[in-house]
Amino acid sequence: MTQSFVAVDWGSTNRRIFHIAADGRVISRSNDDRGLRAITDFPAEIDRLRSNAGALPLLLAGTIGSNRGWVEVPYVPAPARLADVAVGVLQVADGVAIVPGVSFADPLRPDVMRGEEVQVLGALALGLIDDGLVCLPGTHSKWVAVNDGAIASFRTVMTGDIFAALQSASVLADLLVDVPACDGVFALGVDHGLETNDLTAELFTTRARVLTAGMTRADAASRISGLLIGADVRIGLGHRRADVVPLIGTSGLCERFALALQRAGREAMIIDGDTVFVAGASAIMKELAT
Amino acid sequence: MTQSFVAVDWGSTNRRIFHIAADGRVISRSNDDRGLRAITDFPAEIDRLRSNAGALPLLLAGTIGSNRGWVEVPYVPAPARLADVAVGVLQVADGVAIVPGVSFADPLRPDVMRGEEVQVLGALALGLIDDGLVCLPGTHSKWVAVNDGAIASFRTVMTGDIFAALQSASVLADLLVDVPACDGVFALGVDHGLETNDLTAELFTTRARVLTAGMTRADAASRISGLLIGADVRIGLGHRRADVVPLIGTSGLCERFALALQRAGREAMIIDGDTVFVAGASAIMKELAT
Repeated sequence: MTQSFVAVDWGSTNRRIFHIAADGRVISRSNDDRGLRAITDFPAEIDRLRSNAGALPLLLAGTIGSNRGWVEVPYVPAPARLADVAVGVLQVADGVAIVPGVSFADPLRPDVMRGEEVQVLGALALGLIDDGLVCLPGTHSKWVAVNDGAIASFRTVMTGDIFAALQSASVLADLLVDVPACDGVFALGVDHGLETNDLTAELFTTRARVLTAGMTRADAASRISGLLIGADVRIGLGHRRADVVPLIGTSGLCERFALALQRAGREAMIIDGDTVFVAGASAIMKELAT
Repeated sequence: MTQSFVAVDWGSTNRRIFHIAADGRVISRSNDDRGLRAITDFPAEIDRLRSNAGALPLLLAGTIGSNRGWVEVPYVPAPARLADVAVGVLQVADGVAIVPGVSFADPLRPDVMRGEEVQVLGALALGLIDDGLVCLPGTHSKWVAVNDGAIASFRTVMTGDIFAALQSASVLADLLVDVPACDGVFALGVDHGLETNDLTAELFTTRARVLTAGMTRADAASRISGLLIGADVRIGLGHRRADVVPLIGTSGLCERFALALQRAGREAMIIDGDTVFVAGASAIMKELAT
């Protein structure tokens, strides 16, 4: 049997920490901004985690296992099932293990994920998703094709990353101060992004709309978010039928993607990202214990 | 008759200064990094320019006339001819005038330019271009439709701006250290950008190619440049025939766009951006003097 353990979804800027009981219930959880960029001494950081959580086994997932993390853990190639991911888990210190990411080695469009595989495996373990297309919206949205219980293939769209880059270092920066709304202006942006393939031009027209047509800064932010998410959904759906698309993530972003899917004539089903992360981590620990 | 004057193409980060004789010849030229962002006191900066160039009339063009410049000069709406632009020139101080930008007030895709209008008018004045499509590659590439000697309509693609934003603040930043080459890898990126409308996903596959398929960092930069420029040319050409497309700008960037146009089955003709800027500024001064 598995024992109580601590699972950490450890990204570049943030991390989420879950103390999980042997039966899979969450004993405690916390979020902080001690992502990879904030940390220089990983062993010291692990000691600090343990002084809070006790000397429990630690299972780490996310970019902590990337070439810009603590220890680079080789990707498990898709198609990847729970057992494949568990085999790839790397013990990096006494009682500390890192989950591998999954790679998709198609020469035409190779792709990689780290952390999302835990959520997809958790959603499968809980029976929340089945074979078909799943979307995990985010800095790097993942559109995952699940087939026969395995992560079969996937596609990353760097929507959130590009939004943040435009916000911090482009002519659109001063339009991207307000949090984008999930409203009619957003929906019009989505419609354009779903239908038209001129993103790098259409983003600029938003500035022209502010300068020449009186669009407000708040509406500009919503429209830009809509253009990017519309393109994301267009690319993610591709030519797939997928009448219902499960969305795994945080509620605010999932609501935007749900609206975008609706504009594309699909139905969305929102699944809480934390819940399936915990389930996936528990499933991996159980697999490791057998 | 016009007299000797100083024309400045004044952008956000750089400016180019031309001392131009009454007959249009360039007496001297210089470039520096005293763009808008470096300047807090514009009148003092004008005095400094004059202490170098003498008390000559100054004609300023570019983002100096924008809402983030010195004095905001209202756009002249397209279709805009030399005479229209000259009428919009604003005297902002004794002997100092700013050229207006041009706006395209289409409600479906409004657009704006500042500075490029001088180059297009100069190319027309020199007889280097005629009616048809002209491309000015840059931070914000402009694809200008010239009709009956007027800037009739245009489309901005924010290729250079997005490349710089990715370089400074995205997961691709550490792949964008080397200057992109204009080689076979670049051309493959162009081909993808010309054909396929999945830019925000395809950019990310470049990172996956580095992580899983051994692509070098230098090739990754070239490929990303190719993807963006391929998309730029696809959007800019739209459904136009345009067998030969004049490119106005600096040689390095124009060569990339020329290769991209070639991949799209078009011929490019490179026109030096400084030459047509000087010709355009001279034409505007001449028009103002009549």
